[in-house]
Amino acid sequence: MNPTRHSDFRTRVRRSFDNQKAMALLGAELTRINHGSVEIELPFDEKLTQQHGFLHSGVIAAALDAAGTYAAYSMLDPEASILTIEFKVNLMSPGRGERFLFRGEVTKPGSTIIVSDGRGYAITPDGPAKLIASMTGTMMVIRGREDIAG
Amino acid sequence: MNPTRHSDFRTRVRRSFDNQKAMALLGAELTRINHGSVEIELPFDEKLTQQHGFLHSGVIAAALDAAGTYAAYSMLDPEASILTIEFKVNLMSPGRGERFLFRGEVTKPGSTIIVSDGRGYAITPDGPAKLIASMTGTMMVIRGREDIAG
Amino acid sequence: MNPTRHSDFRTRVRRSFDNQKAMALLGAELTRINHGSVEIELPFDEKLTQQHGFLHSGVIAAALDAAGTYAAYSMLDPEASILTIEFKVNLMSPGRGERFLFRGEVTKPGSTIIVSDGRGYAITPDGPAKLIASMTGTMMVIRGREDIAG
Amino acid sequence: MNPTRHSDFRTRVRRSFDNQKAMALLGAELTRINHGSVEIELPFDEKLTQQHGFLHSGVIAAALDAAGTYAAYSMLDPEASILTIEFKVNLMSPGRGERFLFRGEVTKPGSTIIVSDGRGYAITPDGPAKLIASMTGTMMVIRGREDIAG
Repeated sequence: MNPTRHSDFRTRVRRSFDNQKAMALLGAELTRINHGSVEIELPFDEKLTQQHGFLHSGVIAAALDAAGTYAAYSMLDPEASILTIEFKVNLMSPGRGERFLFRGEVTKPGSTIIVSDGRGYAITPDGPAKLIASMTGTMMVIRGREDIAG
Repeated sequence: MNPTRHSDFRTRVRRSFDNQKAMALLGAELTRINHGSVEIELPFDEKLTQQHGFLHSGVIAAALDAAGTYAAYSMLDPEASILTIEFKVNLMSPGRGERFLFRGEVTKPGSTIIVSDGRGYAITPDGPAKLIASMTGTMMVIRGREDIAG
Repeated sequence: MNPTRHSDFRTRVRRSFDNQKAMALLGAELTRINHGSVEIELPFDEKLTQQHGFLHSGVIAAALDAAGTYAAYSMLDPEASILTIEFKVNLMSPGRGERFLFRGEVTKPGSTIIVSDGRGYAITPDGPAKLIASMTGTMMVIRGREDIAG
Repeated sequence: MNPTRHSDFRTRVRRSFDNQKAMALLGAELTRINHGSVEIELPFDEKLTQQHGFLHSGVIAAALDAAGTYAAYSMLDPEASILTIEFKVNLMSPGRGERFLFRGEVTKPGSTIIVSDGRGYAITPDGPAKLIASMTGTMMVIRGREDIAG
């Protein structure tokens, strides 16, 4: 048995994600939860755009940060919670597509600090997924604070 | 006369901001436009929260990136447009407050690459503004592309 | 009396800086220590260059990280030490000059996480200092580890 | 024939690396050059340390930036040169080891902007390589400037 793999991590990730009201506002769905890796998908919607009609960088950042945060959260014991300290996003291609996929993965687990990396892809019906963004985020594990739980 | 100050920069910034549909979705307002510096304000709304009820980091990133981008855009000639290449956000305190203020300022103007810095503050009725986040963003000036104008 | 200002912070910063053998290798000097702000200077030397003859970005990063780290360290109690978790550097102009000045300042103090910002300037005899780089760094306060002290 | 693969890229990368005098100062060697991927190795040396005796973060940044820059440079045509705009480094474990390996890889090629990612590893005789750092860097392709060539 892997002592760092807590049997209910999928349930806890999904419950916490469902508490992120911003994800519902953006239309983001949690489509895959593995131990240390999470995927979020988002259909294109005109209300999510920047001035040229592409997906707004803040929407990309929100989805990548959530994917990276829940990748980290999936590896925590049930008593711990998590806060993002900082993240960096590179925007590589304009956010054009019918649907977007954001994958977050833990690069460096830790008991205090966790580092996740993420990638965002635009998905179109007639071609391969296109890399549109990457992220590196640093998270802090939080314990014993009632206002930061789950 | 400052040759780099184009008389209608406030009009152009406001028009472009109004084209960012994501800003309307978040309830963000453009409250100050100076040459090289822009402020965006956002009332707290439960639909913008992460799992602990704080303002979502992606919302903070969206507002800071927009403030930094329009600070840069305010210094451009009318033929040029702008794209964010990358940004980094540090989240310093939980996003709790009645209202939030995001200020973006150009740190390094340029004809190809512009660097902006930004800060985000939580505003409460009974205390000083509290620094909740900082950003550094790198923008590229775009010319002669029909799909990236304005 | 400011309880967070420890009377010997200048001595401790200087002693720790003198233990950074890499600073000696680069010819970096600690020229100013305030509470929450530190300056490091570096004369240009051909052995510090990249392929075009400018100051190497790694040298700039080393000096900015040290300035930001010691700005944070100057605010700590004598029992605590500090490690850099991550930093981001923007290189704004080629590192040309006779001498370089790097200033680090604490943007957000904290008992666990400290954020510092830094700026680097090229200094020439016949003109104003030129901004060549900026940095944002995140540091973690370390306590009770014998291998990470001072 | 791949039109983007220039037959002499290994020669050009090596020549440019040899012009980085800072690499010689740090004792860094170019140990592998592929199209879009470069490795640099560095033996531990006490003169490269920070205050706790670990490899200095600036040395790590210098090697990661060089690896990412030459990964990008390996994909350029012979007339083009390259400058780093910005990079972010996460320091994941203290830089302890006999030898260090830094690998840079192009994540997003481009005619103007190139994004590289890098990882740094500590190597000890009796165990697996340990991830000590990661980097994301943004580079700009430069053409037609005599002071920035090669």
